[in-house]
Amino acid sequence: MTFTTKDFTRRMERALSHAAEAGLTGVLVTPGPDLVYFTGYQPTAITERITMLVLDADHDPHLIVPVLERPDAAAAPGAAAVTITDWADGSDPYAATSRLLDPHGRYALSDSAWAMHLLGLQEALPDSRYTSMTATLPMLRAVKDADEVQRLASAGAAADAAYEQILTVRFAGRTETEVGNDLARLLREHGHSQVDFTVVGSGPNGANPHHEMGDRVIEFGDTVVLDFGGLKDGYGSDTTRTVHVGPPTAEELEVYEVVRRAQQAGFEAVQPGVACEEIDRAARAVIEDAGYGEYFIHRTGHGIGLTTHEPPYMVAGERRPLVPGMCFSIEPGIYLPGRFGVRIEDIVTVTENAGRRLNNTSHEMRIVA
Amino acid sequence: MTFTTKDFTRRMERALSHAAEAGLTGVLVTPGPDLVYFTGYQPTAITERITMLVLDADHDPHLIVPVLERPDAAAAPGAAAVTITDWADGSDPYAATSRLLDPHGRYALSDSAWAMHLLGLQEALPDSRYTSMTATLPMLRAVKDADEVQRLASAGAAADAAYEQILTVRFAGRTETEVGNDLARLLREHGHSQVDFTVVGSGPNGANPHHEMGDRVIEFGDTVVLDFGGLKDGYGSDTTRTVHVGPPTAEELEVYEVVRRAQQAGFEAVQPGVACEEIDRAARAVIEDAGYGEYFIHRTGHGIGLTTHEPPYMVAGERRPLVPGMCFSIEPGIYLPGRFGVRIEDIVTVTENAGRRLNNTSHEMRIVA
Repeated sequence: MTFTTKDFTRRMERALSHAAEAGLTGVLVTPGPDLVYFTGYQPTAITERITMLVLDADHDPHLIVPVLERPDAAAAPGAAAVTITDWADGSDPYAATSRLLDPHGRYALSDSAWAMHLLGLQEALPDSRYTSMTATLPMLRAVKDADEVQRLASAGAAADAAYEQILTVRFAGRTETEVGNDLARLLREHGHSQVDFTVVGSGPNGANPHHEMGDRVIEFGDTVVLDFGGLKDGYGSDTTRTVHVGPPTAEELEVYEVVRRAQQAGFEAVQPGVACEEIDRAARAVIEDAGYGEYFIHRTGHGIGLTTHEPPYMVAGERRPLVPGMCFSIEPGIYLPGRFGVRIEDIVTVTENAGRRLNNTSHEMRIVA
Repeated sequence: MTFTTKDFTRRMERALSHAAEAGLTGVLVTPGPDLVYFTGYQPTAITERITMLVLDADHDPHLIVPVLERPDAAAAPGAAAVTITDWADGSDPYAATSRLLDPHGRYALSDSAWAMHLLGLQEALPDSRYTSMTATLPMLRAVKDADEVQRLASAGAAADAAYEQILTVRFAGRTETEVGNDLARLLREHGHSQVDFTVVGSGPNGANPHHEMGDRVIEFGDTVVLDFGGLKDGYGSDTTRTVHVGPPTAEELEVYEVVRRAQQAGFEAVQPGVACEEIDRAARAVIEDAGYGEYFIHRTGHGIGLTTHEPPYMVAGERRPLVPGMCFSIEPGIYLPGRFGVRIEDIVTVTENAGRRLNNTSHEMRIVA
């Protein structure tokens, strides 16, 4: 399953059509997921030497690269869809790049472009204007084509398989890091080329949603948040389940049940045309109604694709509508400081009339040893 | 050997003094080597959520972080040297960050800061001005303190040990990639946590200084360029030696000897106060005098520290003076297209009155099997 020149060209055309709607002259793309999306090209390293894809309505797509890296760029899957130009050490890279731009143009620029490069272009073309991709074209990569959804589903199934297997390992008496290493190994065994995170938040550590894993020895009676994912065939996985070492208390079960219902409510709110923030609202309402609102301290979800973290965001204030093909997480949680946390997360894709889960392991609280 | 609050504070004070000399209000530091340098803090991932250290003369250093990452930031080695503030999802991170800035201020910003964040600050404070760290404060991390030089020396010694061992492996009949993998393994065995590059340029491939390694099978009679390095205890190594499979020809020996003398000339030119470009000139003069000037197609060296590639650059036009504590490569080469290449590279640190090599393996051409 390889993307073709036609796929890359179609993506560039779609981007230009969105750019025109947003009143932009064009789109400037730097190394990272945006450039992979449009060309399949991923330089060995992202360095101080500028590489930039210039898309506008009046010219063919141009990719400017350091001359040293030209052979690599020419070998990229989407190279046939672009014209490659280069610049050499000792010459001014911003002069070379700005020759491809409209001096009075207004461009959307990849979020993670180096500030140094933006400053160089702003100085070379003082009348040009820039906005970030997220500010102007946030949904650029948000709507996935069928092949992309299939890859995300495959990554999700691999993460699900890793979860089923982690339930059989020993938790009590081992450190979070040991269990996290098991998770990373399982993700790789199930085809992940890259593991981005393996959160193992046991007992009070589970109440810190950003805690990754540490030396804490997991104890009998702990609630343990497991949040893991990475890339398989270039596309992301990300799922969270909360397990319990031995039988839970009534309070732990109650909190768990609130989170489970919140995740379900968020999922059931998914349909084309609904604003992203409504997914957050639906999940959050369940937690607030149960009296735990102050303990749900993050947004409900984020998009996923070539990265494990991208638009669209399921967060208050995001009024843009869901569109078929969007893929994102729904991951409400409750975090009781110093005590324990619970989070449940699935990746969901928007179909023609509803949501479809790309993670399908049980939402029942599973007991581990 | 851990850096202390005093080390971090001294670095921040030195940066502010350089910033004042450059007419800047302050310095804005984002995740990456700059932030590690000032605080020891390295977020798990560099994401769309802004993290920024704000240094100016009128306030204590402030580190603004996403609230989710506050516990990690507070646990960083240099946390005691800064005041940590945070912002939460759903709030405006640029409003929060710009409250720490002078609305009319002029700031140097880390090169690799996300363009999205720069655009956010430019919009929040339209009268503020920004320059890249490399444009305004290129020597920010260039002068190493004693502990840093010691770490670089230790990384260099590890690379030297790897080189001595690679001389004992088989070259003829194996691919460049196989020998490169041996080099990577040896660097790790000698304490490297990260291998950044393992160039194995055999025969004609050695004449392409950007060639890393490939499927070419090394032959008896080949000249082979070995250029390798990475990070050990957070600091970089980078050394090049050129070996020969079996006895060299008279021409190969002659070219080798020119490069050896060029490297020595560059080294002997090192002393405080000498312009960086003089190191390039000294090495290049030897190669030009021998008639090979057109075949030395890159600058003579680059700085090294928390990264394997940073200022100061030993290149024509770099008139800034060498200062005790600077550490950089001296790596002249001659590349005969389609035939072979020779390069010899040592990391060198500037002492009170001369240079000191941090790589100390022999410069004699070594014969391998």
